[in-house]
Amino acid sequence: MTETPPKSMTRHTPLPKGDGNGYVVADGKRYDLPGHTHVFGDDMPLPLDSGETLSPFTLSYQTYGTLNADKSNAILIMHGLTADQYVAETHPVTGKPGWWNDVVGSGKAIDTDKYHVICCNVIGGCLGSTGPRTVNPKTGEPWGINFPVITIGDMARSQKMLLDVLGIEKVYAVVGASMGGMMALHFSAYYPDRLQKCLLIATASTHSPQNIGFDEIGRQAIMADPNWQGGHYYNTGAYPSRGLAVARMTAHITYLSEQALSHKFGRSLQTGDDVGFGFDADFQIESYLRHQGYAFVSRFDANSYMYITRAMDYFDLQKNMGCSTLADCFKNSQNIKFCVVSFSTDWLFTTGASRQIVKALNAVGADVSFSEIDSDEGHDSFLLKKPDFWDIIQAFLNKTIK
Amino acid sequence: MTETPPKSMTRHTPLPKGDGNGYVVADGKRYDLPGHTHVFGDDMPLPLDSGETLSPFTLSYQTYGTLNADKSNAILIMHGLTADQYVAETHPVTGKPGWWNDVVGSGKAIDTDKYHVICCNVIGGCLGSTGPRTVNPKTGEPWGINFPVITIGDMARSQKMLLDVLGIEKVYAVVGASMGGMMALHFSAYYPDRLQKCLLIATASTHSPQNIGFDEIGRQAIMADPNWQGGHYYNTGAYPSRGLAVARMTAHITYLSEQALSHKFGRSLQTGDDVGFGFDADFQIESYLRHQGYAFVSRFDANSYMYITRAMDYFDLQKNMGCSTLADCFKNSQNIKFCVVSFSTDWLFTTGASRQIVKALNAVGADVSFSEIDSDEGHDSFLLKKPDFWDIIQAFLNKTIK
Repeated sequence: MTETPPKSMTRHTPLPKGDGNGYVVADGKRYDLPGHTHVFGDDMPLPLDSGETLSPFTLSYQTYGTLNADKSNAILIMHGLTADQYVAETHPVTGKPGWWNDVVGSGKAIDTDKYHVICCNVIGGCLGSTGPRTVNPKTGEPWGINFPVITIGDMARSQKMLLDVLGIEKVYAVVGASMGGMMALHFSAYYPDRLQKCLLIATASTHSPQNIGFDEIGRQAIMADPNWQGGHYYNTGAYPSRGLAVARMTAHITYLSEQALSHKFGRSLQTGDDVGFGFDADFQIESYLRHQGYAFVSRFDANSYMYITRAMDYFDLQKNMGCSTLADCFKNSQNIKFCVVSFSTDWLFTTGASRQIVKALNAVGADVSFSEIDSDEGHDSFLLKKPDFWDIIQAFLNKTIK
Repeated sequence: MTETPPKSMTRHTPLPKGDGNGYVVADGKRYDLPGHTHVFGDDMPLPLDSGETLSPFTLSYQTYGTLNADKSNAILIMHGLTADQYVAETHPVTGKPGWWNDVVGSGKAIDTDKYHVICCNVIGGCLGSTGPRTVNPKTGEPWGINFPVITIGDMARSQKMLLDVLGIEKVYAVVGASMGGMMALHFSAYYPDRLQKCLLIATASTHSPQNIGFDEIGRQAIMADPNWQGGHYYNTGAYPSRGLAVARMTAHITYLSEQALSHKFGRSLQTGDDVGFGFDADFQIESYLRHQGYAFVSRFDANSYMYITRAMDYFDLQKNMGCSTLADCFKNSQNIKFCVVSFSTDWLFTTGASRQIVKALNAVGADVSFSEIDSDEGHDSFLLKKPDFWDIIQAFLNKTIK
C-alpha cells in the first residue's frame, strides 16, 4: 500500500491516479499535480472526530530538500486555509510562485539544503488530497456535501499517518501559520513525541467568534448561490463562482490591516480624479477585492472552502482535548522547543491569541520564545517580505538542541 | 405644491400618496407610513452631485415635540445607513421600538418637551422618500438601477430644502451618527448659517478603504443573487433576499467589536455541548448573524442598500468641497458649536477618524468638544444604553449659547 518515501526533491513526477487524484480540473482544463500521492487503503482508515471513518483516503504532498539517512531533518509545514502543498514552486494551476517561495528554498530561512521539507494538502482540500470533490467509492459520485465534516485534529492526524508511512518517527520541526498553526499546535499537543520543534505563526488555540462570523458569511454566500445546488454541483456544468468570490472577498479583507488598505489603496480611484456615479469598481480597493474573489474561484473548490472553514470554526484545543486549562493540553509537550510569532496589525489572529498560547506553554515550563513583529500588513504579513521575521525562523530552526 | 409645515408632533396621519410613497409593501403586505410627506415639484428640483437632477421627488419625515413660535427649537436628526425617520416610535413595518427610542423623547437626552425633532428618510431610501423603488414618472416603472447615484451631499441638500419648505431658517442643532454624522458634517460645512449646534457621533469626514471594501462585498453579494435581475426585480415576484441577507451579515459584524462578540456569544453553541458536524448554525454567533441577515430583508430594499452604501463610499468632505485641507472646509463654520463623540472599540468609525474632524475644527478656531466613550460594544454603542453618552448629548444640547 505504501510508496517508497521520497529521498530527494522531486517535481512533476507522474502520479498514481488513486481515487480521482493526481490531477485537478479548473476552468474546464486539466492540470497534473506535481509531487507525491499516498493512498491510504482499508488497512489505514482515518478515524474522524465526528465519529465517522474515512477510508480509503488520499494525501497529496510535496517535498523539497533531501531527507538525511537517519530521517532526522524533516520539517513538516502545515498550510493555511486556501494554500496547498506547493510551498516553494510554481503553482500547477495558477502558474504563480509558491506561497512561501521567499521562505523555503536553498539558503533561505527554511533551508532546503539542510532540511527535508514536507507539505501536505489537507484532508478536505482540493489539490489532490481527499475532499468533497473526490469520488466516494461507495457511490461512484463525488462526495459533495455528503463528505464528512472534518476538523483540524483530523487534518493533523492524517499527516501524522503520512509520517508513519514515510517512516519518519520524529520530525525536526512542525511549522504552521494561520490554520496551519492550529494544526501544528494540535500536533504538538497530541503527538509530542513526533516533533522536536514547533513554530507557530499568526495563529490561535481557538477560533474567535468574530472569525466564526466571517467564516459563516462566506459559507452563506456560497450556499446562497443557486449554482451551489445543495452542494452537488459537480458534473452539472454549473459552479457557484459568484458565491465563492464573495466569500473570498470577505475573507480577504480580514487578511489585511486597515493600515495596509490605507497605504496600499487609500481612496485612490481606478481612473481619473472623479468617481463614476455608478456601481462599477471606482476605487482601487473595489477592483482589488473583485480580482481576489474571481481569481480564487478558478483554483479552489467551493465545498472545500466550506469544509475547511468549518474545521477552523470547530478548533478549540482545550475543549477538544477535554482539558480544564489550555496549559493542561501541553503537559506532555515540555520537551518540544516552541517559537510563537504574531504580527502587530493582525486582527484575525491577534497578538493576544498568540500570548494565550505562550502563557499556557510557560505554565507547563515549556521552552518557548515569543516575538510580535511590527508590521502594517495584517495577517498576510507572514506571506510577505519580512527579513526580521525570516531571521527569527532561521535562528529558531538552526539553533542546536541541547 | 408644498404642504402646511407640521406645527406639532403628529403620528399616524393619513398621507398624500405622492409618487408611490405613503406606504411600503414588505413580504407582500402593505404598511402605511405614519408621519409626514413632502412632494417637491418641478419648482424645487434636487440638483445632484452627479450632475443629474431629481424632479419631482418626495421626502418622508417624522417629527416629535412642538416647534416653538420663532422656530428656533428644531433639531434635525440624520439617520444611519439602514435606519429611518422612526426615531422614537414603533417601527411601522417591524413593530419594534424606534432606533433611538432611548435617546429621544419626553425628559430624555434629546428632550421632546423642549425640542422639535425632525428626522427625514434619506433620499435613495425605502421608507417613503424617493429611491430606486419609487416609480419614475417618466417611464411609469420603478427606477431600479436607473435611479441616479446619490451622495451624502445630495441627502444633506434635500434636507436643507425640507427646512426651506418648513420655514425653519436655522435649526437649533443637527445631530447625526454614523452615516448621519457624515450628512451632519456636510451640512455644517455647506450650510453653516442653517444651524447653531452640530453633534457628530461615531462618524468620519471620509469613508475608509476598509469600509469601502465591506460595502463593495455587500453590493457584490446582492448583485450575485440572480433574483436581483440586473437591479430590476420590482414587480417580478422575486427578490434578492439571500444576497441582501449576506450583505447585512457582513455589515453587521463590523458594527460589533471583537470584545462584544466574545462577551455576547463567545463560542457558545446553540444547543448542547457538542458541535453538530454539519453546516447548520452550531454557534450562537452564526444563528445571530443569520437572524440579522434575514430579518433585514423584510424591511429594506436591496437597491436602496446599494445606493446608500455607494453614497457613503463617495463621501470625502475635503475632496468634495475642493479644499486643500479638511480644516478649510470649516472656515465658515466657526460660529457653530460642535460636539464630537466616538466609542473606544468602534473599528468602523474609529476614534482616529473623529480626531481628524476635531483637529480640523480646532484649526479654524471652532468651538468643539470631543469625548471618546469607553465601550466594549463597537460601532453599535450609539444605539445602546450608555448613560454617560446620553449625559454628553443632553449637556451639549441644553448648554446656553452665549
